[in-house]
Amino acid sequence: MNASVLRLGHRHSRDKRISTHVALTARAFGASRIVYDGRAVDVKESVDEITSSWGGDFKVEFTEGYRDFINSFEGLKVHLTMYGLPLDDVVADFGLEGDILVVVGGAKVPSDVFELVDYNVAVGNQPHSEVAALAVFLDRIFGGGELDRDFKGRMRIVPQNRGKKVLEG
Amino acid sequence: MNASVLRLGHRHSRDKRISTHVALTARAFGASRIVYDGRAVDVKESVDEITSSWGGDFKVEFTEGYRDFINSFEGLKVHLTMYGLPLDDVVADFGLEGDILVVVGGAKVPSDVFELVDYNVAVGNQPHSEVAALAVFLDRIFGGGELDRDFKGRMRIVPQNRGKKVLEG
Repeated sequence: MNASVLRLGHRHSRDKRISTHVALTARAFGASRIVYDGRAVDVKESVDEITSSWGGDFKVEFTEGYRDFINSFEGLKVHLTMYGLPLDDVVADFGLEGDILVVVGGAKVPSDVFELVDYNVAVGNQPHSEVAALAVFLDRIFGGGELDRDFKGRMRIVPQNRGKKVLEG
Repeated sequence: MNASVLRLGHRHSRDKRISTHVALTARAFGASRIVYDGRAVDVKESVDEITSSWGGDFKVEFTEGYRDFINSFEGLKVHLTMYGLPLDDVVADFGLEGDILVVVGGAKVPSDVFELVDYNVAVGNQPHSEVAALAVFLDRIFGGGELDRDFKGRMRIVPQNRGKKVLEG
């Protein structure tokens, strides 16, 4: 399964940190790219730097129109929202192959987004965080295997119970 | 299992939104309280409002000293860090009963935190987000059951595939 993330509602200065968390979460949990509705240029710079150090080929892209982007996407389209169907009731329907678009909003998502996708899915029907929702959603569709992936980066962590061990080069 | 979250490194204005996401994630994924190292008063106000509307008895508390707090906590102490042991290698050791303290940092975590806890655990050895790490960690220790929990709130969502249905009262 190849996952793209579409991040709606990025409003420059206020959202930079959350938008960066969304992107790094997409990358670490196995998505191949994130697409911002709007020009999140500084977010792209931060995330590209991480990818250059830590590996993989995660892409940060922009679109100027989420409607056209969602409509032209070929594959399964899922919007994460606290109002949707419980994740564990529908995740088995998604299958393990093909392309999936995961749409995550900020506070205000235009109402047509609910109509443009195939599924509106809730990672719990409680208010929390698009970062948390995206992480748990990707973890479910990739079955946890994404956490063991080798990113083949210039920098690599050697896991241990105390301290920090990083290999470079 | 009863989970408390300790959030380190909250620096007022810059971190308010991320700190709020951490707290709402702790609540939605089954923790019983979050403790801030520092006086995150405005975060507490936002989160208490959510709890008042959406239910449960999640608590937001403050401590002025993370060392004493961690030392005096009775139960299993786990720090989430990209440098730690892979989650899926250790989660089975944690058992299903008792109290657990989950320590999450921001960018800079004092080095003694690694020594004060029983386990340093990585939710993937890649840089991402403390919000994502906390969500997936809690989801693992609660086995996904936390997403079905009834918070018995004044406001409740009726899950559906299109639109928003909220019951109040």
